[in-house]
Amino acid sequence: MLSFGHHLIIECLGQHAHLGEQALERLLVTAAEAGGASVLQTHFHPFGEGRGITGVVLLAESHITVHTWPEHDYAAFDVFMCGGCRPMQAAEIITTACPDAVTSVRSIERGLPFSTGYVTEHLSSSNSQSDSFSMGEGKIQNS
Amino acid sequence: MLSFGHHLIIECLGQHAHLGEQALERLLVTAAEAGGASVLQTHFHPFGEGRGITGVVLLAESHITVHTWPEHDYAAFDVFMCGGCRPMQAAEIITTACPDAVTSVRSIERGLPFSTGYVTEHLSSSNSQSDSFSMGEGKIQNS
Repeated sequence: MLSFGHHLIIECLGQHAHLGEQALERLLVTAAEAGGASVLQTHFHPFGEGRGITGVVLLAESHITVHTWPEHDYAAFDVFMCGGCRPMQAAEIITTACPDAVTSVRSIERGLPFSTGYVTEHLSSSNSQSDSFSMGEGKIQNS
Repeated sequence: MLSFGHHLIIECLGQHAHLGEQALERLLVTAAEAGGASVLQTHFHPFGEGRGITGVVLLAESHITVHTWPEHDYAAFDVFMCGGCRPMQAAEIITTACPDAVTSVRSIERGLPFSTGYVTEHLSSSNSQSDSFSMGEGKIQNS
């Protein structure tokens, strides 16, 4: 795998699903900053009273998204950060925002699972497990 | 797993990385429509001549995102669709848009890996493999 970054799949059961638009925007921007990323744009769409919210923070280093289902106490977040960012620190901001929530974080390495000619050394493969995908050690060659 | 939808992680090596902003927006909107989703908003950010583009299509059923690295011939797409959408059909629009590209699609079930009380029956677990995560069969109980 030629790694371009890590993508964290975050599932939350509890209070996250009931946060309002402004609280979610603050949370995602705070998470982005904690991860060392630069916010380009923020966009949110509330579906109406008692219904969910969908939103995105576009980053110079990819994105953070959120979708909430208050009727199921469920919120789905994604943190995808490339480069030298710290996505796990962003995820920690999100998962700890609601202390009583039950949360799950899965990590996926993003990049090219193909032979590309960019790779200068063959790096260790990840040891994926069901619902728990370890991060590999691929690096992009500086050209 | 109480499933709220499927999230497809799409990696592309080749021409996708060199598509312009308008072509990417058309591609993502076409993919959304092919998947039976409703587009709420589209937002794109080009990083400048010879550099990448980052973008999102917010859906009533979650999102499609893209990030391109033309200098590495690499483009990363995400298709996350809940409800009765057809994310694989959306992914097929994306992967076949550039016939010479080499593409990879990984599927991840999104939802709650916790006991919630919403599940009416215990459903088969997914058999995850490295870089290939099978879809489970969880369903949300209609309340």
